[in-house]
This record gives sequence, C-alpha cells and structure tokens, in this order.
Amino acid sequence: MTSRMELLSSLAVENQTKMVLLVVDGLGGLPGPKGLTELETARTPNLDELAARSETGLLEIVDLGITAGSGPAHLALFGYDPLEFVVGRGILEALGVGALVAPGDICARGNLCRWGEREIVVDRRAGRVSTERSLRILERLGREIPEISGVRVTLYPSQEHRFVAVFSGAGLDERVFDADPQRDGRPMRWAAPKAPEGEFTAGVANAFIRRVAELLEGDPQVSGCLLRGFSGVPALPGLKELYRIRSAALAGYPMYRGLARLVGMDVLEAGPRQRDLFRTVQAYWDDYDFFFIHVKTADLCGEDGDFNGKVQALESLDEDIPVLADLQPTVFVVTGDHSTPSLLKGHSWHPVPFLFYSPYGRPDDVISFGERVCARGGLGRMEASRLMGLMLAHSLRLMKYGA
Amino acid sequence: MTSRMELLSSLAVENQTKMVLLVVDGLGGLPGPKGLTELETARTPNLDELAARSETGLLEIVDLGITAGSGPAHLALFGYDPLEFVVGRGILEALGVGALVAPGDICARGNLCRWGEREIVVDRRAGRVSTERSLRILERLGREIPEISGVRVTLYPSQEHRFVAVFSGAGLDERVFDADPQRDGRPMRWAAPKAPEGEFTAGVANAFIRRVAELLEGDPQVSGCLLRGFSGVPALPGLKELYRIRSAALAGYPMYRGLARLVGMDVLEAGPRQRDLFRTVQAYWDDYDFFFIHVKTADLCGEDGDFNGKVQALESLDEDIPVLADLQPTVFVVTGDHSTPSLLKGHSWHPVPFLFYSPYGRPDDVISFGERVCARGGLGRMEASRLMGLMLAHSLRLMKYGA
Repeated sequence: MTSRMELLSSLAVENQTKMVLLVVDGLGGLPGPKGLTELETARTPNLDELAARSETGLLEIVDLGITAGSGPAHLALFGYDPLEFVVGRGILEALGVGALVAPGDICARGNLCRWGEREIVVDRRAGRVSTERSLRILERLGREIPEISGVRVTLYPSQEHRFVAVFSGAGLDERVFDADPQRDGRPMRWAAPKAPEGEFTAGVANAFIRRVAELLEGDPQVSGCLLRGFSGVPALPGLKELYRIRSAALAGYPMYRGLARLVGMDVLEAGPRQRDLFRTVQAYWDDYDFFFIHVKTADLCGEDGDFNGKVQALESLDEDIPVLADLQPTVFVVTGDHSTPSLLKGHSWHPVPFLFYSPYGRPDDVISFGERVCARGGLGRMEASRLMGLMLAHSLRLMKYGA
Repeated sequence: MTSRMELLSSLAVENQTKMVLLVVDGLGGLPGPKGLTELETARTPNLDELAARSETGLLEIVDLGITAGSGPAHLALFGYDPLEFVVGRGILEALGVGALVAPGDICARGNLCRWGEREIVVDRRAGRVSTERSLRILERLGREIPEISGVRVTLYPSQEHRFVAVFSGAGLDERVFDADPQRDGRPMRWAAPKAPEGEFTAGVANAFIRRVAELLEGDPQVSGCLLRGFSGVPALPGLKELYRIRSAALAGYPMYRGLARLVGMDVLEAGPRQRDLFRTVQAYWDDYDFFFIHVKTADLCGEDGDFNGKVQALESLDEDIPVLADLQPTVFVVTGDHSTPSLLKGHSWHPVPFLFYSPYGRPDDVISFGERVCARGGLGRMEASRLMGLMLAHSLRLMKYGA
C-alpha cells in the first residue's frame, strides 16, 4: 500500500455526507472537423451549470502519455495507484463476462479449438464457432466437469470460441504458463508452473483440458480447448476498511460491476437505461456514503469513430444529470476513465476533464464542461488516484494531520 | 531505471511515424529593457504559426529552481531522469572536445602546469600557455606515451593549458581522487583510490603524470601536468533498446554530439550552418524515427549578455523552421535545454517554453511562442524527462496499459 493511501486511511472518519462519482466512459476526445471536441460540441447546459459552481481540471489517469485500459483506469479513480495494484487479463476477462470471483480463485481465458492427431492444435479458434453453438458446448462441459481434483470449475461463455474458466479451491496459484501453442498447426503446449507454487494449478488446468478433449472427441470442428492468462483475484484493500465508507456501484456492463466488487462495493441492480441507473441511486440514497456510477455509450461511439454519436450520447447524459444533482450530494464528481477520441477509434492517453462540486470548493472561472476549458481549471492537472482523497476531504471525512 | 521508464519501454511498439525534437540551446530568457524577453521580442512568424497549431507549456529541466548543465539537461530531454543518470565532468569535457569514448574508458580533465623543486606545483595553468603551443606539446606527449601498463592513452587538446585524457583498457575505474594540489605553490597531490577498485587507475594516472614530467623536464613554462574529474562512460540504456526507435542527432558542437552518442543516437555529419543541419534531416528522413537537432547561437549570445544578438539568433532560427515543418513530422517539438537570459549571462533555472505539435493534440489558445504565453498553455508545467513519453504516445508508439 502506498504511503499516501495509508495516510488517508489513518485520517478517515465516518459522517453523514454523500459522495457521487459519475464516470463517463471514454469522456475525453480530440477536435473534430470544426475544431471542437465531442464534449465541446455537445450542448450540455446541466453539466455547464454544474461546472460553473465547481472546480475543474484534467485527470492524468495512469501517467502522462500512458493509455489506460479499463482496469487500471477504474482502480485509479477508486484511489488505488494503478502501477502498484495490477489486475490481470484473466480476471478482467472474467469480470467482463460477469463471473463472480472470490479471493483465492484463479481465472483463465479459454478458447474452444480443434485438436488433430498427436496433440496437434489444428485451429486455435475452432473455425470461429458460432456464439450459439459455443454456448451449448460450454453448458455441457460445465455440467460434465463440475470439479477437477477437488477444485470447482465454472465456465462462462463469451463471444464465438472464447470463454472464461474460474477455478475455485484451496492451493491454487496464478504462476502458470499458458496452455496454448500460440499458433495453429503446432503441437499442444501444456500448462506449466512458473514457480513451484503453480504446479498444482497447472496440473488442474491440464487435467481439465484432457477431460474436455475426451468429451468432445469426434467432433470435426470443436474438439478441445486452450487456457491462457491465468490470474488470481488481486488482494485489494477494500474501501470500507480503508476509508470507513459504505460504497455502491451502478453499472450496466459486467466488467465495471466486477471492478467495483474488487474494491468492496455493493453492486446494485438497475434497469438497462442510464436514467434507471441514476434513479436507483435515488432509491438507495440513505444506504450508502459513496456512489460510483458508470455510463458506457460515449465510449462505444468513440470506439466506432462516430463523432456525432458521441456528441449525442453526451447530450443525452446531460439531460439526466438533474436526477443526480437534485439529490444534492456533498461531493459530486463528473469525469471519465480515459479518453476515447472518435479520431483514434480507441482509448487514448489524453487527460480527461473533470468537474468537482462541493460546498467547500473555490469555484474557478470555468463555466462550461470541456477538455480545454478544464485545462485552465482551478484544480489543474491531477493524477486520477488522488481524486478519492480529495472527495474524502471535501466530504469532511479526513481528520487533521498532526496537531 | 525508473519504473516510469520501464513502463514506457514495456509498452513501446514500432511504426512508420517520425518525431523531431529541435533543441534551441539557452532558449528561455528574462525581460529586457522593454519588459519583453528575447523570445518575446523576436519576430518569429513561423514558430508562432506552429504554436497556434500545437499544445504549449513550460519544461522544468531538472527541478524547480535548479539550473541545469548541458549534460543533465539533454539527458532529461532524451527521457532520462537527470537525478538518476549522472554524467561526470570528465566525460562531459571529453565529449566537448570531440573525444570518442566507449564503455569501460575513463576520462579526466587535464592541465598543463609548471613543476618546481621537490614536486611543488608552481603554476597550475603553466602561465596560461597559448593554445597553439599547448597543441604542439600535447601532440608530442600523445606520440611518446601511447600506453601505460597496457592502458591506451589518448590526449585531446582544448583551450590554452586544458586538455582531456582518455584511458582505455581493462580494469579501469572512476573512483579516483584528483591528481591536483588545487592551489599554486603547493606540493603535488597524487591520484589516490576512493575505493580499492580505483587503485589500478590511480596508479596509471600517476605513472602518466611522471612520464609527462620526464618528457617536459627543463622547459621553463610547461614542465608537467595535472589530472582531475576522473569519470567513466555512464551505462545508459539506449533509445533503441528502450523504445525501439532509430534515432539520429544533428549538432554542430562536439558535446551535444557526444551526449547523443551516449544514448545510442547515430550522429550525422552536416555543414556548419543551421540550415545545413535542417537540410541533413531532410536527406536522412527515411532512415530514422527520431531526429534530435541542436542549435547553439541563442545560448552563446545569452552567455555574452547580448540581448539583441539573441533576438537575432531566434529570428534567424525562425526563418529556417519551414525546412523542418515541411517534412511534416508526426510529432514536432521545439524547446530548449535550459534558459540563458542575457540579464544573467549564463544558464539559469527558469523553465523553458515548448511547443508540441501532433495531429492528435488539443491545440490550446496560445498563438505565439514565448515564455509567458506558454506558461498558460494546455500542457502546463512539465518535467522535461516526461517529454519523451509524450512524444512516443503522440506518435502512436505506446500500447495500452492493462486491459
């Protein structure tokens, strides 16, 4: 744990204030044909009004120039140094398909594949078997292989040939090399321990793969599987233990629900629309101190290179802002987990604008919400992992340091 | 290596983009009689136009309030933490006289001096012997003393009594105290090891000094020499190994060529004028990913306290900017290695303005190039050693961190 996190933790006290962190996935952008970014283009009267009463700035999510994946980005926003606390690919994939994982579990990314003679992996993707057929096969495998050597096996289908395997039981360890020959037409490369502690897990993984091959024997397309990216559930100190806050997450997509669970948030169920998420916050207002809300549409449009779609997503977000603002949280932060400029059709390294409302702020002269106005905001450029400490401070939850 | 450098290195990929880093030595200044700095006074339409399309900011070269020498300043601009990677005086002096040094070599700064009776150093500068005479003496010494105890000795003349000695061979070490009594009229203080590893090198240095005294015996002015600032070639990880970029340097002065070589750049030959440097970039455009170009005149004027000369140097630079801009690099950075205000007649601690052009930037509202407009630029104040990471990001050479 960083010394900064320890300091915050040592100063934390409980009170009745409420904090809301609204994360607009892929919020930041780049100038489009008319020289304005998506956010600068969007008509956002409610966010502008909020910005006018707030302090603003830019968040560096991981570090200057670094493009953040969703895992590190959310850890940073939750107050964890994203270079110290690392979430492996297997676990992120597992969270993405909605797998429930607990400390001690090991997750792996799986491929259905086609085996040939003498353990040759003919096709690592089983001809990109349809999602529908894959689902039926995985249901059967899950039923037929409930456990291996006392380790419970749970399978979660994903798209086409992809799935996630979660192994639960005593003695598991993530230090295992991929069971994957990496290229078609090569002999199978079996799981192997990276350290003595990984030996049992490698054995379980290989036994699982052999059992799958037995069950699928004779199928001309899907006759085996591969496993890679073995990773355990990272040991993250929870927000409750760290800062004495009861926290809840509202998110439509499984990965963000999973990331919230990793830091000890309760994940609340809500309807599928953005407004449903916001209304659910209202419904649980008395039960929690901290609400994390994740909205996804702007990012999807950015990934598609759809500038106008992203503008519309942001305008639609703006319309629902009063649902949250009317709850009058003590601290209300609106930001993103990274930039997703339509120009780049993907995550980018550009810092993300944020607005920070609190009755104890020094509102700057920024009166709209956008990348370049926030660059001149009163909070300047800030590491995302420092946001949590500032939210705690403004909700009067941190005692004085020293006498 | 810093964890940041390791992170960047682990994310680096190759592509076809081009980066140009133009370093205007001593760029930053201070207000003159009319209240404007040299750069603010200079008519620089090309730099202003580039600034208008760029993001701008100020670089802290080493740290707030620290005046950077050329060595740390360039290391920082090349992405090395200048407090972690240290380049000794001997090696800088050697680079400054154009010495070719390799890992394992030890460099020392030398003085020709006058010996008296009983090893008294009568005059540490040999009456500031003329550069011409010094050159002849050093040629003879170099010829007569090709090696000492199996260690090759190479001598490079500098101004007046000064020279550089490079020792090349096995078993050398920089942990050696100066062979120099520090003041005239004192008995010689011989080289001595700072640690057991330096014993052999101290012995070689002392044997060299004795041999010089034998050869010069009887000369009434120049009858010996001193050696100080023993330093090895620092083990810097190269830019190619770190970031998978092929880099080239264009610089008229030996020290900057030497610094570029230390980080693995190819040093290209060019004519003596600024425009020759720029044209050579053009000639090698397809062969490299990264071009470092160093221009010196503004700094020389600043050192002389010549405000108007520095203004003219910057205006002359501006005239040649289109030669580089027309190459359309993906990333084009113009900055300095430190400030050299005419007012102070030397390097200073003031942060240095920079402009950062990339097609993936968010141009700020700065439309001219100067210290105080850049202070309000979109990139704010930045440590110089972070520039390289940002250049790699904007040239799309860094993968995403985490999934």
